[in-house]
Amino acid sequence: MDFQHNERTQQLIKKVKKFIDEKIRPFETQYFKEIHKRNNGHDWTKWSVSSEIENLKQQAKAEGLWNLFLPDTEHGQGLSALEYAPLAEEMGKSFLAPEIFNCNAPDTGNMEVLHKYGTAEQKAQWLTPLLNGEIRSAFCMTEPDVASSDATNMQATAIIEGDEIVINGTKWWSSGIGHPNCKVIIFMGLSDANANRHSQHSMVLVPVDTKGVTIERMLPVFGEYDEPYGHGEVSFTNVRVPIANLILGKGRGFEIAQGRLGPGRIHHCMRCIGAAEYVLKLLIERSISRVAFGKPIINLGGNRERIADFRIAIDQARLLTFFAAWKLDTLGALGAMTEISAIKVVAPNVLQQVCDEAIQIHGGAGVSHDFPFTGFFSIARCIRIADGPDAVHRGLITRMELLKYPNVGK
Amino acid sequence: MDFQHNERTQQLIKKVKKFIDEKIRPFETQYFKEIHKRNNGHDWTKWSVSSEIENLKQQAKAEGLWNLFLPDTEHGQGLSALEYAPLAEEMGKSFLAPEIFNCNAPDTGNMEVLHKYGTAEQKAQWLTPLLNGEIRSAFCMTEPDVASSDATNMQATAIIEGDEIVINGTKWWSSGIGHPNCKVIIFMGLSDANANRHSQHSMVLVPVDTKGVTIERMLPVFGEYDEPYGHGEVSFTNVRVPIANLILGKGRGFEIAQGRLGPGRIHHCMRCIGAAEYVLKLLIERSISRVAFGKPIINLGGNRERIADFRIAIDQARLLTFFAAWKLDTLGALGAMTEISAIKVVAPNVLQQVCDEAIQIHGGAGVSHDFPFTGFFSIARCIRIADGPDAVHRGLITRMELLKYPNVGK
Amino acid sequence: MDFQHNERTQQLIKKVKKFIDEKIRPFETQYFKEIHKRNNGHDWTKWSVSSEIENLKQQAKAEGLWNLFLPDTEHGQGLSALEYAPLAEEMGKSFLAPEIFNCNAPDTGNMEVLHKYGTAEQKAQWLTPLLNGEIRSAFCMTEPDVASSDATNMQATAIIEGDEIVINGTKWWSSGIGHPNCKVIIFMGLSDANANRHSQHSMVLVPVDTKGVTIERMLPVFGEYDEPYGHGEVSFTNVRVPIANLILGKGRGFEIAQGRLGPGRIHHCMRCIGAAEYVLKLLIERSISRVAFGKPIINLGGNRERIADFRIAIDQARLLTFFAAWKLDTLGALGAMTEISAIKVVAPNVLQQVCDEAIQIHGGAGVSHDFPFTGFFSIARCIRIADGPDAVHRGLITRMELLKYPNVGK
Amino acid sequence: MDFQHNERTQQLIKKVKKFIDEKIRPFETQYFKEIHKRNNGHDWTKWSVSSEIENLKQQAKAEGLWNLFLPDTEHGQGLSALEYAPLAEEMGKSFLAPEIFNCNAPDTGNMEVLHKYGTAEQKAQWLTPLLNGEIRSAFCMTEPDVASSDATNMQATAIIEGDEIVINGTKWWSSGIGHPNCKVIIFMGLSDANANRHSQHSMVLVPVDTKGVTIERMLPVFGEYDEPYGHGEVSFTNVRVPIANLILGKGRGFEIAQGRLGPGRIHHCMRCIGAAEYVLKLLIERSISRVAFGKPIINLGGNRERIADFRIAIDQARLLTFFAAWKLDTLGALGAMTEISAIKVVAPNVLQQVCDEAIQIHGGAGVSHDFPFTGFFSIARCIRIADGPDAVHRGLITRMELLKYPNVGK
Repeated sequence: MDFQHNERTQQLIKKVKKFIDEKIRPFETQYFKEIHKRNNGHDWTKWSVSSEIENLKQQAKAEGLWNLFLPDTEHGQGLSALEYAPLAEEMGKSFLAPEIFNCNAPDTGNMEVLHKYGTAEQKAQWLTPLLNGEIRSAFCMTEPDVASSDATNMQATAIIEGDEIVINGTKWWSSGIGHPNCKVIIFMGLSDANANRHSQHSMVLVPVDTKGVTIERMLPVFGEYDEPYGHGEVSFTNVRVPIANLILGKGRGFEIAQGRLGPGRIHHCMRCIGAAEYVLKLLIERSISRVAFGKPIINLGGNRERIADFRIAIDQARLLTFFAAWKLDTLGALGAMTEISAIKVVAPNVLQQVCDEAIQIHGGAGVSHDFPFTGFFSIARCIRIADGPDAVHRGLITRMELLKYPNVGK
Repeated sequence: MDFQHNERTQQLIKKVKKFIDEKIRPFETQYFKEIHKRNNGHDWTKWSVSSEIENLKQQAKAEGLWNLFLPDTEHGQGLSALEYAPLAEEMGKSFLAPEIFNCNAPDTGNMEVLHKYGTAEQKAQWLTPLLNGEIRSAFCMTEPDVASSDATNMQATAIIEGDEIVINGTKWWSSGIGHPNCKVIIFMGLSDANANRHSQHSMVLVPVDTKGVTIERMLPVFGEYDEPYGHGEVSFTNVRVPIANLILGKGRGFEIAQGRLGPGRIHHCMRCIGAAEYVLKLLIERSISRVAFGKPIINLGGNRERIADFRIAIDQARLLTFFAAWKLDTLGALGAMTEISAIKVVAPNVLQQVCDEAIQIHGGAGVSHDFPFTGFFSIARCIRIADGPDAVHRGLITRMELLKYPNVGK
Repeated sequence: MDFQHNERTQQLIKKVKKFIDEKIRPFETQYFKEIHKRNNGHDWTKWSVSSEIENLKQQAKAEGLWNLFLPDTEHGQGLSALEYAPLAEEMGKSFLAPEIFNCNAPDTGNMEVLHKYGTAEQKAQWLTPLLNGEIRSAFCMTEPDVASSDATNMQATAIIEGDEIVINGTKWWSSGIGHPNCKVIIFMGLSDANANRHSQHSMVLVPVDTKGVTIERMLPVFGEYDEPYGHGEVSFTNVRVPIANLILGKGRGFEIAQGRLGPGRIHHCMRCIGAAEYVLKLLIERSISRVAFGKPIINLGGNRERIADFRIAIDQARLLTFFAAWKLDTLGALGAMTEISAIKVVAPNVLQQVCDEAIQIHGGAGVSHDFPFTGFFSIARCIRIADGPDAVHRGLITRMELLKYPNVGK
Repeated sequence: MDFQHNERTQQLIKKVKKFIDEKIRPFETQYFKEIHKRNNGHDWTKWSVSSEIENLKQQAKAEGLWNLFLPDTEHGQGLSALEYAPLAEEMGKSFLAPEIFNCNAPDTGNMEVLHKYGTAEQKAQWLTPLLNGEIRSAFCMTEPDVASSDATNMQATAIIEGDEIVINGTKWWSSGIGHPNCKVIIFMGLSDANANRHSQHSMVLVPVDTKGVTIERMLPVFGEYDEPYGHGEVSFTNVRVPIANLILGKGRGFEIAQGRLGPGRIHHCMRCIGAAEYVLKLLIERSISRVAFGKPIINLGGNRERIADFRIAIDQARLLTFFAAWKLDTLGALGAMTEISAIKVVAPNVLQQVCDEAIQIHGGAGVSHDFPFTGFFSIARCIRIADGPDAVHRGLITRMELLKYPNVGK
């Protein structure tokens, strides 16, 4: 057992950190100020991409800080989940960093899917420009009319008719679909209601500009629209794409989804942990600097205890996520199920709580745009729902636990 | 001891409930949909007042559901804090109800101040139109540059020079200042830095259109600008008002503030409790209606237990707030200090937690504008900071508790 | 609505308080020291009754502080549940007070049962000496071999054979059965397994010295045997009692149990609240008196916040229990179901938490017999299990809550 | 980074596990039943050592499962803290295992002290028989009259007079002093009140049978006396030992204590984690096996969620403790301060909570001696106080955290 990252990872951590501190951080405060001033809100037709972001992406690519998430050695950097985890943590400290290093969800998951399951044509058409950061993508799974925490509830259809797939239904929480560069959707829908429960759904590539695809609206998260990414509600009306757009095969949607979710959850959680560290840093700085009732705020009431509790909670969440990544690397997604579900519960909750307390310490400033707390809070709040809500993951952990007791109660 | 509201209060509860259910609720969903669509955000110069709201206000006034908060029998309805409390609970279930019944903060507190401490001229000029619902008002106390949880930190000045008061400084979180009808500010500032700690500050009436008063910006709360009320940052640059605008006397700001805060906190808390009941209702309806893994969501995991815990928490918060109101009515603000601080900690926290869980039960829909949860969450989140953050109230409760042990440790 | 106890109740509170402070408290510290020194532990055959306790009982009776729990005006004092509640709170501050005022469980519940449902003969034989404090009693319901949280699981039998009832089976957690004066058991058992679910069980009076009744052992609670009351495991082997010992009628056990439990739970909860107040008092006194790192302990870390949280929690628990008592008095046991279950969850949990923190503040002394914390902790811990565990009460609260939504999900 | 234990450790885990399962577990249930039956309680003069325990110790020694805690390769097995940690976890699942493997506190800490700081004579006289398991030892630090959470409060004296040390004062919570084989005390006391704060105290070896040493009483923990170890209150009246009994030098008590506490806390925490695993196992088995309301208990209310939360909490605690051990091994006690304090807060709290829930699931059986829950609960409860209460460790964590902000607020 050894808790030290290997040499290469240590070097990458330093480089990512330095890039964020020196290049991204100074830019992003101003950037968000302008976005808020522009006040485009839900009107995504006015959203644009900052040229400085494209510029920073080029720099990141030049420094080799590019597609770090992809385990593949040819297109990515050959990093294991455990090696990439601390880099994701660093990226989580900034809202922009994930895009700038081309490690942004849902593009990362989509790239993994294409890399792992895509045909040569699919890869040429979509994976290459995604890996180059030239286009973005969306993932359409969640639906407004059913409890999507149970993914088998999905009702939107992807029916194979001859050499075409016909798509109908409404999806929402399609993150990133508002981005001007978003060109392709991975759509998951019902293709055979009579197959067994986990073989009914298929994944299909749908270009955003296909006839019948309509972005109905952008959805706010606590009032924010997350420009220029956005979370869209998208209707599909008799959308037709060639059967060549089917990924892996009919009814294999869940199989793909499983492979996609393990690494994605580790990325999300590590970013939450990074964000929690950053928010804790701001919390501490403020609580040392501001004075009330004759003392720095940090010395009032239980504030010092809360800081200790956050230090403990963050460190525990990080170790558990590293452990999950290590199990994923060594035992595969199935062998890491308990741990991946565990971090999915733990990490966003820790971030949410640190944000809540940072708001409390900052007073009114904390709920405004003057600080990043409501932004990080919203990320945490959404992750607690997305990719399976807390309750589903708790349920899965117990199900796994009970496998250790095959004969009890029989 | 008797837990039944008196006959009059029971009748008023029914009338307020009916008015909200039949007149306000059907209107407000559409109303907020339009506000969000208009997307004015921080650009408060475009904010307007809906004629339907003015219409509803007239109806409320006609039905005698007007200024219920004011204990005075002449201008209000002569209700005690305990009699008004359950009405405030009902109003808390709707975002618009408080304004429509002319029971909206900070106007309520400002009216109480003017009613209790205002001169005849001050009353004629400001109290009458406020009581009529013709104008609105703001309260300027919190400042961006100091920890305002300790109100003695206030640095903005209100210096008496001859027969004028000269005002300088910056205030923020001046709620309601964005409302097109907001005409007057009650400003609290330092008038004598050499007086004893609680006699340094004065309260002054400042018409919003006075020269030198500038609304610098509206502040978002979790990305929302609370149109058409808003929370403003306001600068005061050599603002001059006649000395007749001074309330009660130089250095008596804290004295006024104390009298103002007791009832106000009870109103806030009862509205939180009402909101929590309403959110719990939506949570339960959704959890019964949606199905996942073959069961209504309510029957999954710990959902039923959480509902029980919310029922307990809400009922306890309500009883404690009634008790605080009863103590305020029978013993005055000083005699109710422990209880008022206690509810100030409890009630918004209960609301925040119910909202958080309602979001979890609703999935993505919960964080969007399709449901009122983020709106109520933001109210709860702000109340935990405003009028003294949780930590200050906990500190006060313990200070009061220790008065029971005068000789221990001596 | 009025939060003041009536005059008579106020007077009784004062008298009970004074009696405890002046007569019981000075005695009980020494009393328990001797019990611990005697070290009889599980060997209940050596348990005895202190003559001083009998003496104190006579004094209490003489002062009219006797059978206060019984609503009946002839045999009790005619106090409503709400009037008795604050007296139970005072009694809860002392381990001995409940017995000395003849208000000790399970005798109180047993007396209520006999008073309400007993025949003239049953009353003459058992109720009169119980009301006089001459004998004690036990209640045998819980069984070792089934999950007794679901009372319908009870397997021990009480079969009517001609003019006798034949009893077989094992019960445990029969509290008070170790007391030298314990003379009678109310036994609840299965008398007709084919009746409907809540009509299968009957209650029967069984003299402790009946042939076939064997106290197998006393059960420890966290290592303590609660001398001279005790919690027994009792076996019944072909125990025969005359049919005249049947209470109310065959199959009416649950009907009786329901009537018995409402008031009993309120008594338990109020005693928990009294104990929590007393423990908080000791906690505060210690935290003011002891110094560490140059400060009184109270000023370290989050200690002051915790005291505030306890003040809030205790006050909320008390109000909720008063409310439950008021509903019981005005609407009966069915109308108070939600509230009685709510306090059953809340009150012992508050006591447990206050004890846990008092231990923490007292260090090693806190877990020893030098302070009463482990004693009160054990009471709280048992009440969380007895008369329905927390989970059962939470379940019931939600079931009641859902009655408000008869049409949702249909 | 690698989460796999090395080969040797894996082998040792298996051997320890097997030894406990096959040899200790079958014995210990009966053993404790007899101890409880004997009912010696506080009367330690009747305590004896089971010959079977001596027998098991010989077997453990023969199998090389002996003194595993000692990093030294000559007298111990040369295991690092990280290698020993999982073995301590296994031992924590049994009350007897630590003694049987000669890895019992406070002997382990005392052996470390002697090994590290003892003179050749001290080692010959005390370390050798301790390493052989022939004698036991105690550690006298905590005092009844001061807040011992601040160790500098210690008032008992160890004054050097010529070639003797004169010891006076009272200590308590001297664990293990009741053991028939306990022959020596490491006493820590004030030797120079004028030295600087951390150089006032010295450690001295005091044979238990020295004149003036009196065991005043054994202290109960939640009513249990922990026979045959015990927790004693010990008075020292003009106790004289030769100056050769001084460890390391005058005023170096804190220096020794620091070196002693790091590994000791890791052992305690790992044992807590092992105990928590074992208790969770019993909890799950019971909740699968017992039925209420027609379902296995595990499927009622939030029980499944709680199991998931415990799985998460235990895994996080284990990883954090391994991390602390790794930092201790690689950076020394100073470099591991934050982590050691963190686990000291986390691990016993997790154990306490699992025990509390196991009690809830087992009903009355849970608080009795029929299950080990109150025993493990008491261990957890004491560890939260011993070696620094939670509040002190939280304070230390924050102090360490603030070292990262040397310039803020300056």
